[in-house]
Amino acid sequence: MDIAVVGLGLIGGSLLRALAAAGHRVTGYDADPATREQAATAGFPIAASVPDAIAGTDLTVLAVPLPALPAVLDHLTAYRGLITDVTSVKGPVRDLAPPRFVGGHPMAGKETSGFAASDATLFDGCAWVLCLEPGVTALPDWLTLAALLTRLGARVVPLTAAEHDRVVAQVSHVPHLFAAALAGQLRDNPPAATLAAGSFRDGTRVAATRAELIAAMCGGNAAAVKDELDHLLADLHRMRALLDAPDPVAALTTALRPAVELRRAWPVADQVPAELPAGTDVLLDLGRAGGWVTAVAEDRTTVSAMRPETDRNRS
Amino acid sequence: MDIAVVGLGLIGGSLLRALAAAGHRVTGYDADPATREQAATAGFPIAASVPDAIAGTDLTVLAVPLPALPAVLDHLTAYRGLITDVTSVKGPVRDLAPPRFVGGHPMAGKETSGFAASDATLFDGCAWVLCLEPGVTALPDWLTLAALLTRLGARVVPLTAAEHDRVVAQVSHVPHLFAAALAGQLRDNPPAATLAAGSFRDGTRVAATRAELIAAMCGGNAAAVKDELDHLLADLHRMRALLDAPDPVAALTTALRPAVELRRAWPVADQVPAELPAGTDVLLDLGRAGGWVTAVAEDRTTVSAMRPETDRNRS
Repeated sequence: MDIAVVGLGLIGGSLLRALAAAGHRVTGYDADPATREQAATAGFPIAASVPDAIAGTDLTVLAVPLPALPAVLDHLTAYRGLITDVTSVKGPVRDLAPPRFVGGHPMAGKETSGFAASDATLFDGCAWVLCLEPGVTALPDWLTLAALLTRLGARVVPLTAAEHDRVVAQVSHVPHLFAAALAGQLRDNPPAATLAAGSFRDGTRVAATRAELIAAMCGGNAAAVKDELDHLLADLHRMRALLDAPDPVAALTTALRPAVELRRAWPVADQVPAELPAGTDVLLDLGRAGGWVTAVAEDRTTVSAMRPETDRNRS
Repeated sequence: MDIAVVGLGLIGGSLLRALAAAGHRVTGYDADPATREQAATAGFPIAASVPDAIAGTDLTVLAVPLPALPAVLDHLTAYRGLITDVTSVKGPVRDLAPPRFVGGHPMAGKETSGFAASDATLFDGCAWVLCLEPGVTALPDWLTLAALLTRLGARVVPLTAAEHDRVVAQVSHVPHLFAAALAGQLRDNPPAATLAAGSFRDGTRVAATRAELIAAMCGGNAAAVKDELDHLLADLHRMRALLDAPDPVAALTTALRPAVELRRAWPVADQVPAELPAGTDVLLDLGRAGGWVTAVAEDRTTVSAMRPETDRNRS
């Protein structure tokens, strides 16, 4: 395919490298001249503007932060190709979406950022949510992207934008707020810094993320983050109340056991392969069951997938 | 010294090994016959009862869980030697304390437990709180223990029991409750299990701890855990409210920045050596400043210590 990548940070830069390595014709663009220079020096065809980058391509990948998306989309009103993005919140993007748009979110990251940190193998094995809205997303477009991304090694997870946003609030955005709250205890508290060990180190690791980035993730997904925070705050208030129970240790043990068992059973080890018809409902059922697409058949009528064994037994 | 170790799980077993390796005469005891057998097979002198284990010793280390402590202490009413313990909460133990008791808490742990997991090098570099209560703890006893433990490689941190309990609630007990709350989101939520990655893995790691152990830590330190939970719940409610601000991203960025900076500055890298007079107030000031004792002088009048450089500049 002939593909434009707009935004050449860690994700966009890695995608430029991975797509070129997979034999696609790529053109890159970044708003920052120094980044364009870096990418050109690395040997990639780089355009001087968004219209130049997208001209004549089949697919444009928008790898810019959410606040920059509307301005870039303005350049794409007459674009006839397929469009996808990589931002970490999908509801707001769905609402901006031009025709032939399929929202995506690669769950890939590193402590580092920028084109200098980009890596052609970044997506190998990573979960990549590709949004599928019943009655809205054109299935052929979704399958084209799924075929492209699975060939980069990604595990393509079909979910609606709303489902995606709820789940990332749970597994990523709210954990960042928890980490920040815990890290905040170090203020004017030198013995805490000395006694903190493994549980604190791991529980606060992502609090070292740039504050702007955590705020953008959570602020961009505010509705889902508020819902999940409400659930978790209620859980924590319940745990606190158990500390006043007649036998707090017994009460807390009972209350904590399900979470302990869930954590011990994660990550799910027993995923099994399946061949599925390439239909919107079947794909969404797969994503909701915790499965993902590993390949799309040449004729686009079936997909290869992995899904939890327990789900296969249930269905 | 002639030392009895009562309780031969991970900590007690490791201490038996470390003290023997340091040239002390050790005797072990565990309530579980199979554990006694294991330790005897490993070549250690093992007694058949608490009275047999402690007879004629200079020091008894109680390495049993908090609920088992009172029954063991009943055997020690006529004991003339020094007594210490290793439980993770110090206020309740202080209140049970017999004469010549100095409460301790090695901040050492592993995913594994039991004598089979014990390791003579477990305490090398670990922070070991040794409680020092002004007007109560006999300084010579404290210094005897500090000398012993620093020779095992431990960083001996002087704090009162109340200070210890507050800090471990912050850096260990409450982080376990946060991890459990986050892990609980996996319930009936297969896509969360699939999309969860680094931030979830680290933020929930300690939720795989046995529920009984988390409950015992938090229940045993209920007052401090409730206080710290209240602070953190208030923080999280404030963050939630910021998501409704006119510019939530800007508001959250400002609110999160101090925690991000605190986490990035941790662990404190610039500890500097100091020689200090061995007085109760000086030692407590050291612990409160985030420092620790690394050695006790032969004549017990001074200690070698490490403390944050910033503190030295301040003092």
